[in-house]
Amino acid sequence: MIEQGGPSRRELLSMIGKAGGALAMYQAMTALGHAAETQFTGPPALSGARKGAKVLVLGAGLAGMLAAYELRKAGYTVQLLEYQNRPGGRNHSIRGGDSFTEVGGATQTCEFQPGNYLNPGPWRIPHHHRTLLHYCKAFGVELEPFIQLNHNAFVHSSKTFGGKPQRYKELAVDYKGHVSELLGKALNAGALDQQVTKEDKEKLIASLREWGLLDGNLSYTSGLLASSQRGYDRAPGGGVNGAPTPSKINGLSDVLDSHVWQEMGFFYNYLMQTTMFQPKGGMDMIGKGFARQISDLITYNAKVTKIAQNDKGVTATWEDLKTGKVSEAKADYCVCTIPLAVLNQLDLQVGPKMKAAIGAVPYSNLLKIGLEFKRRFWEEDYSIYGGHSFTDQQIGLISYPNFDFFKDKPAVVLGAFSGGPGGYAMAGMTPEQRIEAALAQGSVFHPAEYRKEFMNGVSWIWSRTPWILGCCASWTEASREQHYQNLVAMDGRIVLAGEHASYYGCWMEGALLSSLDAIERLHKKALAA
Amino acid sequence: MIEQGGPSRRELLSMIGKAGGALAMYQAMTALGHAAETQFTGPPALSGARKGAKVLVLGAGLAGMLAAYELRKAGYTVQLLEYQNRPGGRNHSIRGGDSFTEVGGATQTCEFQPGNYLNPGPWRIPHHHRTLLHYCKAFGVELEPFIQLNHNAFVHSSKTFGGKPQRYKELAVDYKGHVSELLGKALNAGALDQQVTKEDKEKLIASLREWGLLDGNLSYTSGLLASSQRGYDRAPGGGVNGAPTPSKINGLSDVLDSHVWQEMGFFYNYLMQTTMFQPKGGMDMIGKGFARQISDLITYNAKVTKIAQNDKGVTATWEDLKTGKVSEAKADYCVCTIPLAVLNQLDLQVGPKMKAAIGAVPYSNLLKIGLEFKRRFWEEDYSIYGGHSFTDQQIGLISYPNFDFFKDKPAVVLGAFSGGPGGYAMAGMTPEQRIEAALAQGSVFHPAEYRKEFMNGVSWIWSRTPWILGCCASWTEASREQHYQNLVAMDGRIVLAGEHASYYGCWMEGALLSSLDAIERLHKKALAA
Repeated sequence: MIEQGGPSRRELLSMIGKAGGALAMYQAMTALGHAAETQFTGPPALSGARKGAKVLVLGAGLAGMLAAYELRKAGYTVQLLEYQNRPGGRNHSIRGGDSFTEVGGATQTCEFQPGNYLNPGPWRIPHHHRTLLHYCKAFGVELEPFIQLNHNAFVHSSKTFGGKPQRYKELAVDYKGHVSELLGKALNAGALDQQVTKEDKEKLIASLREWGLLDGNLSYTSGLLASSQRGYDRAPGGGVNGAPTPSKINGLSDVLDSHVWQEMGFFYNYLMQTTMFQPKGGMDMIGKGFARQISDLITYNAKVTKIAQNDKGVTATWEDLKTGKVSEAKADYCVCTIPLAVLNQLDLQVGPKMKAAIGAVPYSNLLKIGLEFKRRFWEEDYSIYGGHSFTDQQIGLISYPNFDFFKDKPAVVLGAFSGGPGGYAMAGMTPEQRIEAALAQGSVFHPAEYRKEFMNGVSWIWSRTPWILGCCASWTEASREQHYQNLVAMDGRIVLAGEHASYYGCWMEGALLSSLDAIERLHKKALAA
Repeated sequence: MIEQGGPSRRELLSMIGKAGGALAMYQAMTALGHAAETQFTGPPALSGARKGAKVLVLGAGLAGMLAAYELRKAGYTVQLLEYQNRPGGRNHSIRGGDSFTEVGGATQTCEFQPGNYLNPGPWRIPHHHRTLLHYCKAFGVELEPFIQLNHNAFVHSSKTFGGKPQRYKELAVDYKGHVSELLGKALNAGALDQQVTKEDKEKLIASLREWGLLDGNLSYTSGLLASSQRGYDRAPGGGVNGAPTPSKINGLSDVLDSHVWQEMGFFYNYLMQTTMFQPKGGMDMIGKGFARQISDLITYNAKVTKIAQNDKGVTATWEDLKTGKVSEAKADYCVCTIPLAVLNQLDLQVGPKMKAAIGAVPYSNLLKIGLEFKRRFWEEDYSIYGGHSFTDQQIGLISYPNFDFFKDKPAVVLGAFSGGPGGYAMAGMTPEQRIEAALAQGSVFHPAEYRKEFMNGVSWIWSRTPWILGCCASWTEASREQHYQNLVAMDGRIVLAGEHASYYGCWMEGALLSSLDAIERLHKKALAA
């Protein structure tokens, strides 16, 4: 720890950074005890770019736009080609009036009321994604809290409790109660005397008694103590009839069958931990914020068909989707952020190792459905404000909106967020069938309201999205081992970037960190040339 | 469950409410599975008030203002006397320019920048406090999320880890890891075969393996698996150096000594569960919202000295603190919300049982300190956005602001929130000494920044607050048994209301539910007269 009166932690880090570069900075941050959260050490310092050197960036998702922004700032001439007619890529929001056609030909037009939206791709930002948070602030993107953990939302297991959803708080409190009771009794019986010291044993029992709400016999039982966490049959009130009535705990078997420990673990996931954020007004505010910085560099509706390179430079062939005109874009280097499933279909002049890597990474099949309802019945009738209700049905979960709380107007619920077999099954349906399935399955949580208050819905199937053909890179340990370094290594004048080229696959932070690493290596190579 | 196509749950409840009154409504709500959250069934329906009947309300806190609002709506003539020059009572916010003098004579003037505030009393609203949420909406009080659980904030125990604060996520994940390992091993060794069926045993072990992040040997060990929840020594990144470095778990003894299980339990408390809210702009927006409805009924600066009653009515003697003039206020009934510690000192004409009850309820000694800092270093340097860092020092905790995230301007941290011995010790200090203690103790969390970025501070000591002499009612089980019904029972023409007359002591919801119950009984008595 730095002594009071000395330089601040930030000043010290800045001094170290200037003196010794990123590695020294990183080591110092670790020593000071707060580097663990990120590999981001601030915007890159790319100085000394050769005047006139040009970089072609392919793809105006976050990785491509960040590369364009930082490379231009460093002095490079930058051109950015984008297939779509908008920036952001998967950083996207669907609003009323938006129309899109999926692979297979089905076209949907969103009917949401003004102000409502579905974020089909990224939708929540961890507090430790410092790169993204840095550029959101730098580019004026306002963020608001994303309610991740809601103790009052539901957990639904088709085969438990007669298929009736239970409040998360009830199951979670019961799980830790039963676990505490059993461990307390095992400790008390001496069953763990070889593993735990006498002193720790006593401390552990005392902790379980308090944490697990155990009684004098180390038992977890129904009563006011358990109700102080899991809730009451009749809540406390005021005046003469103010006394509460305790609730009844669930037995171990039912709690285990509910699989609530999966949600309990989910909320502990480093990437899912509170505090989380979302952009005010929709996720695409981020893409738009990036695009504002480099709007003069982007050519939209540009379909790249071929990427060639030689000693002199890189040449990309592209078609203007509005006019059909085919052109060539030439540059000294290329940062390619085209998603792998699409890139794999292009005429790309790179070595066999990168080619193999590009073909080796499968993409996940996530989908999302947005349902607009006339009123916020989940708040008014169920006291659920944001957060998720989980189910083992195809829809995976429903998630409640995190803005406009308490307002009297239509609101959009995320009516499905699923992958795996359920995701494939729903992807195979027509848009109408998907909405029907989402309504039928979501009704388990809100049976009286779900269909009655429904207005309209829209589904987004990543595996049917023509410009990407999947949601995001699904690396396995084995594919990482074999292909990751080959994917990210610069191949001649071409370097890849995007979430697929990171250890934060499927997260915007991965796309940004990948981009920063790619352009730093590109810059070093350009300087050495 | 109600079948689709039938009346909605809300419609059904409304029908039942009209037909059978509140009790039938409550029973129906219970049967439908969502009454557990509240005793609030909507605003009271007080019809048939005798024209000209008058109610005197004492105290313009939330209980008094709600009574005045609903009684006038029902047709009563209402007069409300308030000792202070503002509405809200403990529903209060301190802003720059505010000045106040505590018992003992010390005067503080707050120096916060515009927009910043300290909520000295209530500061967070549970999602199940439906009465308060109902009236906030009805009176146009905007709410925003209150970040309660922050996995990335600190837990500090003076005697553990060399006094160095640890991130909550690390300790909590380690605690559940060790608990899972020990229970898993005990189960595996057959130590609980008498308590758990073979089927449940297998399911429980499988759940512990996943929830506790255990390895193949049912051990909780350092590695990428544990790091996926407790965080990394080097976080995942992008490009060639993207691979993460795992963190090292803490041993059982250290985790137990940190007492993190207390915080883990705290977050499960029904009253502390997510989602929580706070009013935009400060807690006193609620008091102001109530006051807007009944501003013509309130007389401020009115010090009540005597409350008498007889067959004909109630007479309160009060002094105008601005002019010194003494007057009498006469009414048919009186709703008295004066805090018990103050009420106990008045000349109050009620029976011995209520008198004994009024004198029997001790008030807690909570205090709060607000510290204004030049910048949000907890966000910028520590990735902490809202939530609390806990300590076993006198200050109890520090809590980070839940609005203006990411903004470049001064912000106020709650620098102390404590009662008990620590609270008494700090209450005995001068305001300057309290700020110094808060800075010294809070520096354990942010050693390089806390003093460097400090601007000014203000302390609020409830036990030294002249108009209440304590924070809120501290009922014990024994005192409830002996005195609660005597306190809330109507004594002739006088009925008490406030958080002290509820089972939600210290919460605004308790004050409101108490008030509703009191005026319903008053109304019934008035109708019978």
